[in-house]
Amino acid sequence: MPKQVLEQLETPALILDEARMDRNIERMRSQMRRLGVSFRPHVKTNKCIDVARRLMETPEGPITVSTLLEAEYFAAHGVKDILYAVCIAPNKLDHVMAVQDKGVQLSLLLDSMETAGILAERAKAAQRHFDVLIEIDSDGHRSGVTPDAAELVEIGQFLEGTGISLKGVLTHAGSSYACRSVAAIRAMAEQERAAVVHAADRLRAAGMACPVVSMGSTPTALFAEHLEGVTEVRAGVFVFFDLVMAGINVCQVDDIALSVLATVIGHQREKGWTILDAGWMAMSRDRGTANQPVDQGYGVVCDLDGRPLDDFILVGANQEHGIMAHRSGKVDTARHLPVGTQVRILPNHACSTAAQYGHYNVLGPGHEITATWQRFSGW
Amino acid sequence: MPKQVLEQLETPALILDEARMDRNIERMRSQMRRLGVSFRPHVKTNKCIDVARRLMETPEGPITVSTLLEAEYFAAHGVKDILYAVCIAPNKLDHVMAVQDKGVQLSLLLDSMETAGILAERAKAAQRHFDVLIEIDSDGHRSGVTPDAAELVEIGQFLEGTGISLKGVLTHAGSSYACRSVAAIRAMAEQERAAVVHAADRLRAAGMACPVVSMGSTPTALFAEHLEGVTEVRAGVFVFFDLVMAGINVCQVDDIALSVLATVIGHQREKGWTILDAGWMAMSRDRGTANQPVDQGYGVVCDLDGRPLDDFILVGANQEHGIMAHRSGKVDTARHLPVGTQVRILPNHACSTAAQYGHYNVLGPGHEITATWQRFSGW
Repeated sequence: MPKQVLEQLETPALILDEARMDRNIERMRSQMRRLGVSFRPHVKTNKCIDVARRLMETPEGPITVSTLLEAEYFAAHGVKDILYAVCIAPNKLDHVMAVQDKGVQLSLLLDSMETAGILAERAKAAQRHFDVLIEIDSDGHRSGVTPDAAELVEIGQFLEGTGISLKGVLTHAGSSYACRSVAAIRAMAEQERAAVVHAADRLRAAGMACPVVSMGSTPTALFAEHLEGVTEVRAGVFVFFDLVMAGINVCQVDDIALSVLATVIGHQREKGWTILDAGWMAMSRDRGTANQPVDQGYGVVCDLDGRPLDDFILVGANQEHGIMAHRSGKVDTARHLPVGTQVRILPNHACSTAAQYGHYNVLGPGHEITATWQRFSGW
Repeated sequence: MPKQVLEQLETPALILDEARMDRNIERMRSQMRRLGVSFRPHVKTNKCIDVARRLMETPEGPITVSTLLEAEYFAAHGVKDILYAVCIAPNKLDHVMAVQDKGVQLSLLLDSMETAGILAERAKAAQRHFDVLIEIDSDGHRSGVTPDAAELVEIGQFLEGTGISLKGVLTHAGSSYACRSVAAIRAMAEQERAAVVHAADRLRAAGMACPVVSMGSTPTALFAEHLEGVTEVRAGVFVFFDLVMAGINVCQVDDIALSVLATVIGHQREKGWTILDAGWMAMSRDRGTANQPVDQGYGVVCDLDGRPLDDFILVGANQEHGIMAHRSGKVDTARHLPVGTQVRILPNHACSTAAQYGHYNVLGPGHEITATWQRFSGW
């Protein structure tokens, strides 16, 4: 394939800055080494084997997935140790068994006696072995049993009498995304750690081994001071970062490795609007910065080198139209970009923006596109 | 393929109620007949030939598209008359010519002398003929020249001296989505009609033919009282409808043909939460009802027959988790749904939710899935 440069791409297009990505990965690796824990990267953000290979400790994993299609895809690319980190639904067990049949050690998650009962029944009927973690609720934001719940030990004891192996406990401090300072993230990391370690201790006190103690989110993984008692950490969005992460000081804006290449298609000069061909289909509908101190609209507009055009953001979006304007609403005519000018837009949320595309255009030095990496969607 | 029923689908899955869709299409057809205009359905909502075939007046179109990939896909399925209704960017002209080369009469849109100049240059250099419409701004929400702008006639006169045919004028009253009453939608339809007809009159007064006068949005198309001077109407979301449309009384909740099938995976009983396996990846991040009188969260939860569970909505969403609760926030324990229970969730916005899936599961009488229709994404 002849080399392409940014200027030759049809827009909108998803751009992945390889050097920034590699720097972000090295930052996480270095933190994992410092903390002395193993790393089970979450691949839900990237959904791409080329990215995952740079994240994984070995070509066989381990990894964390959010869907069984991710499990199936990464299994087809040789990954053998996969944790499906969403509580299992009964209608997914056929799919689970199909993935197991590819030689994958696939761990499942549950947080109730109800699901444990269903799983035990299916294990018996299908003569199957399942590996299971119990989800712990460390911050009240989603699923999980609380670390002190009677049900935690009940589930463990119930599983002992079935063909199911209790591998351990898992938690995710999703609330860390709403922290307003690094000190708050540190405190959340300690809350997450203490909760999941306490849960493991209770299971062990009741006679269970509980070898795995898993926690993680990008903010808490990067800012935890120590992780005593934790055996593995999960995180995914750090590989690209995004404006939500920059908004809580987990990264700087110039660490963001993902952007959307767009083109100026018109103007409404009296309003100070520049119309781009990247709307919410190109950016996603994610407005994750709306409740942060600085609302970035649908994204921060940068030049082709990835440098922000100061205070110019997407203030609005239709399906295929983005409205670029000064964030203050003032009519700033100093920034006239002729029709055809290309810009790059940093996204609020890497997971949702990347999901709008079938591939990454990998950006190397200069404006060169060095590779095209496929990604997938769906369940 | 053996017949499947809803209960056998792995979740999340996109469900299309065929009877509701057909009823919605008939409603629009009947309105078009009453208004005496031709219909150029917008296929950006469905991106699926099986749906489009039911919308189109003939197998060859006409249709409206929002991306050149839509143009390319529908051209490959035999559609010959396509309007690309987003102002053209220079880097898309190679793609435009490739679509033209399939025997398609592809009309382009522009709203400035700047773009007209670029297009004329490319037409000359490539020895190509382009058909063009000028976008008219009828409500200040996006692109277009105002109907009274001097630039409108300048563009028309400029194009006359090039190889480009000025086919007419086009407007889209996107502001109709924010109307709060049927009376307001009627007034917006008249504003849209008057603006685009006035623009056509000005071009004709300056000696141009301007055969096409195109307007449309689902609300204004359905509630316009008359469309004198308009030659064609465009609309897309009506085929499925959604909660945003129901919220402005353009349809009833039980007209919504699209839903997401999801499964209960857990509970947080003290909070009154039921956790579903449909998060924002399954619903999209669209929060289009957030500014309406009734905020529907990430969607209205229904039983398997599509009947709303009164006042139960998705109050929150993570990537693969939806949090179902009473809209008031009160802990309503009357509605306990065991793990494994399936529900159907009505979306805020059909265009964005459908975009998260690779196919529609077509729902016939009872709970039977009568077909699987592929759809596509990207540019």
